[in-house]
Amino acid sequence: MSGLFITIEGPDGAGKTSLIKGLAPLLEASLKTELLLTREPGGIPISEKIREIILDPAHTTMDDRTEALLYAAARRQHLVEKVMPALAAGKIVLCDRFVDSSLAYQGAGRGIGMSEVASINEFACAGLEPDLTLYIDVDSEVGLARIQKGRAAEDLDRLDTESLSFHQKVRDGYLRLVKDNPERIVSIDGEQSIEAVQTACFDVIQKRFPKVFN
Amino acid sequence: MSGLFITIEGPDGAGKTSLIKGLAPLLEASLKTELLLTREPGGIPISEKIREIILDPAHTTMDDRTEALLYAAARRQHLVEKVMPALAAGKIVLCDRFVDSSLAYQGAGRGIGMSEVASINEFACAGLEPDLTLYIDVDSEVGLARIQKGRAAEDLDRLDTESLSFHQKVRDGYLRLVKDNPERIVSIDGEQSIEAVQTACFDVIQKRFPKVFN
Repeated sequence: MSGLFITIEGPDGAGKTSLIKGLAPLLEASLKTELLLTREPGGIPISEKIREIILDPAHTTMDDRTEALLYAAARRQHLVEKVMPALAAGKIVLCDRFVDSSLAYQGAGRGIGMSEVASINEFACAGLEPDLTLYIDVDSEVGLARIQKGRAAEDLDRLDTESLSFHQKVRDGYLRLVKDNPERIVSIDGEQSIEAVQTACFDVIQKRFPKVFN
Repeated sequence: MSGLFITIEGPDGAGKTSLIKGLAPLLEASLKTELLLTREPGGIPISEKIREIILDPAHTTMDDRTEALLYAAARRQHLVEKVMPALAAGKIVLCDRFVDSSLAYQGAGRGIGMSEVASINEFACAGLEPDLTLYIDVDSEVGLARIQKGRAAEDLDRLDTESLSFHQKVRDGYLRLVKDNPERIVSIDGEQSIEAVQTACFDVIQKRFPKVFN
């Protein structure tokens, strides 16, 4: 693998979507090599079909472990068909969410256990790890307020309580990952302005991998 | 879990289908408690949908690890929705193929590695193990000859070579499992007459669990 594999992580409301929208053109203007922007299922037909099963509202009996295995299966196929060929071709792959999302959401948030969810993802990745992970950190109440904008007021109370506890577990999971992987994961303050977050991310990538920049 | 979980394993051509057809009524006539006969995906809608993805002939790019994760996901949901409730109700569950099939076929046959495939199945089963596994053993050439009956003669040569090597790997995988799990797995000679195999299986179950019989 001659390319670089960079993942972007963070709880809902961290601002990843806006970040990536601004970061991608900044990188494209400065990188020597091609950038591939992706996220699972990423247009891979098998992964898309798996995602349809996960998201089908008729599947009310879906077990948390079934769901985690399906996410790992979709991840594997996306890796094999999209990420690995791009890395083999020397590209910089920027992936919106990866294994850490499963560890934080299914492992910590849903309570399956992070090491348990890690085991099936190790199987899915078969040794492939991101070269760098940018974790966009945001306080759970701030993140939740951002994603709940526009929801009907009568839904907010119930959601607030349920969601806040879940989001705190997810964030705690992420913070443990940051602590346990100081080489791979860099934490960025997501409560700054979008521009400041973009600049911080750009700087980390440039500092870590100066050779791929013009 | 107050019931009993019994699995039937063996390479293709071992005669499992005929065995179960004969064994089930024998058991039903002698058991004190209800028998549930099942096999994955077992009519569980989520598991059936997952199986459709695995078997879709359009999915020619399906990676071996993706497939193994999908089998584990379908297994989990079948366990949660069908096997576990039956065991909780005190039933005897007789399941045609289970984790050992994945270890033998994906782990040994496809070459992913048995311990690797075991790790995702441990996640899927979360501690649930069969109380007894009946492994129907058959020489690979005998098994292959049985399943190839009726195929066009011109297809036989190519299939013979390819299939024999794969089937031998699968059988070797099963034999390793038998050796590593002497308490759980009982090996039955599948080259005897169907009646003799049925009687042997019935006797093992009766001897192991005398209390559930009349």
